[in-house]
Amino acid sequence: MVKRFYVDQYVDRILAGDRVVLSRAITLVESTLPSDQELAQSVINRLLPHTGNSVRLGITGSPGVGKSTFIEAFGNYLIQQQNKKVAVLAVDPTSQRSGGSILGDKTRMASLANNPAAYIRPSPAGKSLGGVARNTREALLLCEAAGFNVIIIETVGVGQSETAVHSMVDFFLLLLLAGAGDELQGIKKGIMEMADGLTITKADGDNLQKAKSARAEYQHALHLFPSNPSGWNPRVTLCSALENTGIDAIWQMMQEYLTLTQNSGHFERKRKEQNLHWLHQTIRHALEEKFFNNKLIQEKLPNLEKGVAEGQITPFKAANDLLKLF
Amino acid sequence: MVKRFYVDQYVDRILAGDRVVLSRAITLVESTLPSDQELAQSVINRLLPHTGNSVRLGITGSPGVGKSTFIEAFGNYLIQQQNKKVAVLAVDPTSQRSGGSILGDKTRMASLANNPAAYIRPSPAGKSLGGVARNTREALLLCEAAGFNVIIIETVGVGQSETAVHSMVDFFLLLLLAGAGDELQGIKKGIMEMADGLTITKADGDNLQKAKSARAEYQHALHLFPSNPSGWNPRVTLCSALENTGIDAIWQMMQEYLTLTQNSGHFERKRKEQNLHWLHQTIRHALEEKFFNNKLIQEKLPNLEKGVAEGQITPFKAANDLLKLF
Repeated sequence: MVKRFYVDQYVDRILAGDRVVLSRAITLVESTLPSDQELAQSVINRLLPHTGNSVRLGITGSPGVGKSTFIEAFGNYLIQQQNKKVAVLAVDPTSQRSGGSILGDKTRMASLANNPAAYIRPSPAGKSLGGVARNTREALLLCEAAGFNVIIIETVGVGQSETAVHSMVDFFLLLLLAGAGDELQGIKKGIMEMADGLTITKADGDNLQKAKSARAEYQHALHLFPSNPSGWNPRVTLCSALENTGIDAIWQMMQEYLTLTQNSGHFERKRKEQNLHWLHQTIRHALEEKFFNNKLIQEKLPNLEKGVAEGQITPFKAANDLLKLF
Repeated sequence: MVKRFYVDQYVDRILAGDRVVLSRAITLVESTLPSDQELAQSVINRLLPHTGNSVRLGITGSPGVGKSTFIEAFGNYLIQQQNKKVAVLAVDPTSQRSGGSILGDKTRMASLANNPAAYIRPSPAGKSLGGVARNTREALLLCEAAGFNVIIIETVGVGQSETAVHSMVDFFLLLLLAGAGDELQGIKKGIMEMADGLTITKADGDNLQKAKSARAEYQHALHLFPSNPSGWNPRVTLCSALENTGIDAIWQMMQEYLTLTQNSGHFERKRKEQNLHWLHQTIRHALEEKFFNNKLIQEKLPNLEKGVAEGQITPFKAANDLLKLF
């Protein structure tokens, strides 16, 4: 059990920007203990009027693209040049990092982690994607209440996490390496079409020319994509965390996106839809959890799954058989 | 209530290729009457060993791309040149066409509809996407048992149907018009990345040059996409239903895809995964239906949804409140 305060204590201290209490509240959110959960919900609901005032950014890219380096440079830029307070949350269900320690991330983004205007929190360990996603979305609200006004949610780009992250952010950035298409090897299908912006990283030195042609190619390819309901045309930018170039242009692009979508009403509409999405998603998860944790179901499922996979029984007949047991 | 035979009668006559009984069995599948459903399930399970031996094709494209004309030309080619029996099923939840009448489709694809080696069946009317998708997947099995060895599943490309269709076919073809990107206006994001092949239609007369450049552009863009787990590189082809050109090349492309994926084991693996997908999808739907049809839930839901959308209550708190009622 997490060390607990009263609801009021959490609320007051988080609103005052107390990072230690913020961390404890997030740990509470991640706890599976019903009493912790109840307390966490009360805290979040009290803080709800103080949330929503940040820019929520999703950043993804396969390993090797320089994601940590980029987020560190971008975060430092936001703090130093834009006077922002930046929180970085990771959605990475495969992560083996412990929920309590942020050592791994501190090492990854040392200068950002040591900046008092930044807050870095890794994924809770040992949870399913659904659980991680939910925890991250609640942590996001807590960070907003604590005064962070840019929230970066980082994913690894190779799994299903991106769909979940896409449903909690305002702007989704895909980091790419210049190359002959190989840079996308690890990236899941569908992510490209989800992105509001593409950034080619490591655009420096010998790599610059290659990065420039990659930008032209991707920009051209994006024109062939179905258009965005927001009216926004996804853009491709270059950056070098090493030479610290192109970072401001990315923030500039995000600002343009926000202005466009806030003026058109798309921004608010999207946030409302995201809220409803999470309501239905949570109900869905809870119903499925109850079903698949049922003892009788667990007994019968493996055999029926085998029969279905092998084509000996239709999925619908098997589903009906299971539903009758439930 | 549908006019009913005994299970044996359905099974024997469908296996003999009796189209009238095939149609009645599909109507049975679409019926919401529990006794019809039970009968339908018994028929399908008896026929199951005789299914799976067709090529399952998904074909999508926005209105105006010439989808019906294409399917008609393609279907006639398959029958006349490849000695195939072709069934065309539509997944179109917005369709107002009546479930009993295929008049609309007969007019749309007159020469194919009159061909004894073809069978055309529109979407059942008045159903949700989940219902239509399920019905289509079961109709597909019935058509296979009746001896059709190419099953074309047609969707309109503008909704969520494509994800459902993608989960029931071996090869997914996206039809496009040459133009400056406008052809994708109606197409939903994510469909491009789902496609195994792209075909530029109406590649004839004045349009041919434009179609050729569009092919080059799309082919180039596809190289920038994440790679396919099957190892297949999606290809772009041209065709003209008017001049009857390029039709054979599409079938050739599909054959290459099938050879590649059957040799690598991807084909069989994908079909197994699709079966399991439908098992879980069906369970999910049934659980949600039960939940959202609950009277107490229906009473409380609208207010909670409003509160969630407006940000007055977290999605998770609202979900928990509802789940407690259930």
